[in-house]
Amino acid sequence: MNQIEWIAVDWGTSRMRLWALNAQGEIVESAASELGMAKIAQGQFETTLLQLIEPWLTGQTKPLPVIACGMVGARQGWQEVPYEAVPCSPSSQLSNVKTESQQVNVQICWGLKQQVPADVMRGEETQIAGLLHHQGSSYEGVACLPGTHCKWANLAAGQVIEFQSYMTGELYELLAKNSVLRFSIHDDDWHTEVFDKAVRAALDEPGSITGRLFGLRAESLVGNSAGYGSAARLSGYLIGLELASARRFWESNKVSIIGASGLAKHYQRALKLVGCSAHLLDTEAMTLAGLKAAYEAYKVESDV
Amino acid sequence: MNQIEWIAVDWGTSRMRLWALNAQGEIVESAASELGMAKIAQGQFETTLLQLIEPWLTGQTKPLPVIACGMVGARQGWQEVPYEAVPCSPSSQLSNVKTESQQVNVQICWGLKQQVPADVMRGEETQIAGLLHHQGSSYEGVACLPGTHCKWANLAAGQVIEFQSYMTGELYELLAKNSVLRFSIHDDDWHTEVFDKAVRAALDEPGSITGRLFGLRAESLVGNSAGYGSAARLSGYLIGLELASARRFWESNKVSIIGASGLAKHYQRALKLVGCSAHLLDTEAMTLAGLKAAYEAYKVESDV
Repeated sequence: MNQIEWIAVDWGTSRMRLWALNAQGEIVESAASELGMAKIAQGQFETTLLQLIEPWLTGQTKPLPVIACGMVGARQGWQEVPYEAVPCSPSSQLSNVKTESQQVNVQICWGLKQQVPADVMRGEETQIAGLLHHQGSSYEGVACLPGTHCKWANLAAGQVIEFQSYMTGELYELLAKNSVLRFSIHDDDWHTEVFDKAVRAALDEPGSITGRLFGLRAESLVGNSAGYGSAARLSGYLIGLELASARRFWESNKVSIIGASGLAKHYQRALKLVGCSAHLLDTEAMTLAGLKAAYEAYKVESDV
Repeated sequence: MNQIEWIAVDWGTSRMRLWALNAQGEIVESAASELGMAKIAQGQFETTLLQLIEPWLTGQTKPLPVIACGMVGARQGWQEVPYEAVPCSPSSQLSNVKTESQQVNVQICWGLKQQVPADVMRGEETQIAGLLHHQGSSYEGVACLPGTHCKWANLAAGQVIEFQSYMTGELYELLAKNSVLRFSIHDDDWHTEVFDKAVRAALDEPGSITGRLFGLRAESLVGNSAGYGSAARLSGYLIGLELASARRFWESNKVSIIGASGLAKHYQRALKLVGCSAHLLDTEAMTLAGLKAAYEAYKVESDV
């Protein structure tokens, strides 16, 4: 039974991923593209989508539902859709997008917002929805989503209770590639013991890290260690600082890290150092599970 | 008596400043140029200097001493000169630079280095020498030199005992101009009460700041305060973090801030919030005083 019933789209800032699914929720076709939100001019989103899914539209007799999440719903995206305020169920609200084409019925998942302290997410809410679907709606625990702006979220009874974003990934990129440290940081210079030591230093004395950063440059100038493991040290300092600040999330909770990349493994390792055993879940699998849950809710709502 | 006896040069990364002085140490002529070290190709330093001081060389019958400090002595500069290890007197060592021209005798001041924790400075040591000259050699206290890489130094008996660099200025620039916060930070949006509150937040909970940064962006998205005083807040967070880490320098010491810019005044204000009354000294005046002290030592050494 390979009849396409709907299309799931994860449309982020720099990339997108598309799946065609049948009535049983099985993947019939899939595609990936580098045409992330940031690369598409205003007014070109529909054309871009239709070109990518054209082969999947053949033989369709009515509009095909397309459920999309991510930065496609931001002000600079296809159409700005609202943020739902926490506490709430993630990805439970969708906004319809007006299209020229009659072949698709496009819905974009709302992001989440928090008033105090102010915070927002777009895209991660769908991965969290996937986690909640995966774990069962009574799940209580914490989701950690490493990336450019790492998100931590407290979850209970199918809802996101509160969350916080950390600029750790962006800070790493800025320091390693755009600051004076660029001469001293070599991404392939990874040493686990250096990373561990840096995480512990940041957790023990978070206020000291800002003073240790220039040391990464100075060490290569004064000849100590010639910057041994500098990438691991910078990463350890920044992830350790984040853990110091995110203590309330991980201290007495089950933590699920959504992400299977090297970065996610560094978070897992850092958490292990502080006695927290976190498990890794695949980002793409969680996104797809979240989009499936959104589609199920959409079907009920629109009585398809 | 306006006969030029020597030339003082502050040759930094992005700018340079030159003074022609007579035997009484009075300024006879001065000049400034945007031809900082970073803008000059290897092999072009001598030509650049000679063009700038050409009018001052007229009528000189023997080589004119030129004492220079700053990044001109770095690996990417005119000629790499060593770092002297602390504890030591700042700017007391000079290296002679070989020149094609017989009209000048160029000397570059050594930087300072510290082995543990690793740290370096080039240029600030001459400003500190000026401060020590200004305060008298028995001075005990702390020098704070705000800038791209702010330096704190403990001084006693005419020596730099130890020092530490903070990347605060560079972090501010990266976050305000190159990160996602660039949409939310407006440099002209300064509010003193916001700055004060941010400094205190960083001092009270240094580990929390990394989690507050994204809030500067999120506030403008969720509509709270529309980012009121965001530049002051970012600056306050980063200076507060630095003060948290630099506590051993300012807690029970006299602090001299070398710098009269807006940034130096922000440091002065932040220090006042923690009960430390710091006074401001002009950077250029301290640099020139340091170069004068270096020239006096050079005269004794070379028996001029």
